[in-house]
Amino acid sequence: MPGNLSRPGASVASRVFAVLGAFDAEHRALTASELARRAALPLATAHRLAAELVALGGLERQDDRYVVGRRLWALGLLAPVQAELRQIAAPFLQDLYAATRATVHLAERAGHEVLYLDRLSGRATVPVVSRVGGRLPMHATGVGKVLLAHAPAEVRNAVLADLRRITPYTVTQPGRLRAELERVRRNGIAQTIEEMSLGACSVAVPIGRHGEVIAALGLVVPDLRRHRPRLIAALQVAAAGIGRSLSTE
Amino acid sequence: MPGNLSRPGASVASRVFAVLGAFDAEHRALTASELARRAALPLATAHRLAAELVALGGLERQDDRYVVGRRLWALGLLAPVQAELRQIAAPFLQDLYAATRATVHLAERAGHEVLYLDRLSGRATVPVVSRVGGRLPMHATGVGKVLLAHAPAEVRNAVLADLRRITPYTVTQPGRLRAELERVRRNGIAQTIEEMSLGACSVAVPIGRHGEVIAALGLVVPDLRRHRPRLIAALQVAAAGIGRSLSTE
Repeated sequence: MPGNLSRPGASVASRVFAVLGAFDAEHRALTASELARRAALPLATAHRLAAELVALGGLERQDDRYVVGRRLWALGLLAPVQAELRQIAAPFLQDLYAATRATVHLAERAGHEVLYLDRLSGRATVPVVSRVGGRLPMHATGVGKVLLAHAPAEVRNAVLADLRRITPYTVTQPGRLRAELERVRRNGIAQTIEEMSLGACSVAVPIGRHGEVIAALGLVVPDLRRHRPRLIAALQVAAAGIGRSLSTE
Repeated sequence: MPGNLSRPGASVASRVFAVLGAFDAEHRALTASELARRAALPLATAHRLAAELVALGGLERQDDRYVVGRRLWALGLLAPVQAELRQIAAPFLQDLYAATRATVHLAERAGHEVLYLDRLSGRATVPVVSRVGGRLPMHATGVGKVLLAHAPAEVRNAVLADLRRITPYTVTQPGRLRAELERVRRNGIAQTIEEMSLGACSVAVPIGRHGEVIAALGLVVPDLRRHRPRLIAALQVAAAGIGRSLSTE
């Protein structure tokens, strides 16, 4: 109901967030009129709010466009999702990157999607579509399959009922994916073969805390055939280390 | 003038940012009354705004406290400071970490302080007080000295006029620091020896774009004596690579 934002009674906080919510990975710089359209606000209102947000440091101007400002960036980094799991995991991700030179992902489930909490990658030869703070479908990513395998049954059922094809190799048959998730729960290892991006394969393992899966750790590589056992070993050691550090916090 | 926030005419965006601005690295979780006090808002207003922000995903509840929410975190990551320099620098930082196992910093100048844009560190044996999104004094950090050496004269003069002692080794004599900054400009290398934290030394180099210093790259180690030449070589190669990639963007 974005149209409701222009009615006088709409909470101003909601209008501020409508303006901020106009930005996403594909829209990082917006003119005032783009902002108004994407926020479903009258141009004058969008203009005034954007100017206020610039004065407050929430937005910054770049030529005739608005971008998310450094203050909002620094503020977002105070979110505890950063302060705890990410901080503990960071050195393990770096060890994992140093040992494998593969793109490393730390992710958690956010509703019916994977939320990427952290990512390390070199000058990648592999096409990787993830970005920190970004979301991707669970059924087409290694970390996503781990999280989906351990999600509540109602989440799993909802996701299985709507399996979007992303590449020709995305698993879109609910029965096949259900069996695969069963194996993931049993073996503690998930993989994808060009299911999210052509030319990219992934392998992932769960991170547990007090016996509960709270996140997933994954690697993206061009090819799983040669190095799978080595990648899995590295992932398992790192995931165990993160889990142990989390539990003793 | 935080008191002004409670007057009816105060912009609601400014009240929203007063609530958000109540959070910092030392105050990541706040009760409603702490929030009201730190935001200088009446308790009822703070309560209502916090509840609205929770509904919008800007804040999240953790027991009886508020914390910065995932939506704000993801939003902040869209700030272009991330999208450009950080993205280009990331693989170089990882190479640098893999080669040195030292804490790696990418920083820019924000007013009279250093703003840490990125950081990589292992299970550090060195006490490092930086964090991504955090700020530290320029005169006591390696990256800060690089940025101070290349700052406009008025910024340098203002900083030199107010050199706070942080450890017994912090350089607090303006004349001595001025001479040191002159050498940094000449040699392209800055260092600190326990000037920010006891037990931590740093070395840093500038990152240039079209002949202008736009950021600094640094390493923090327990001891500079043995490995200084090797660390500097690694830094210079990485900084040159980042600068080259930036210039061809």
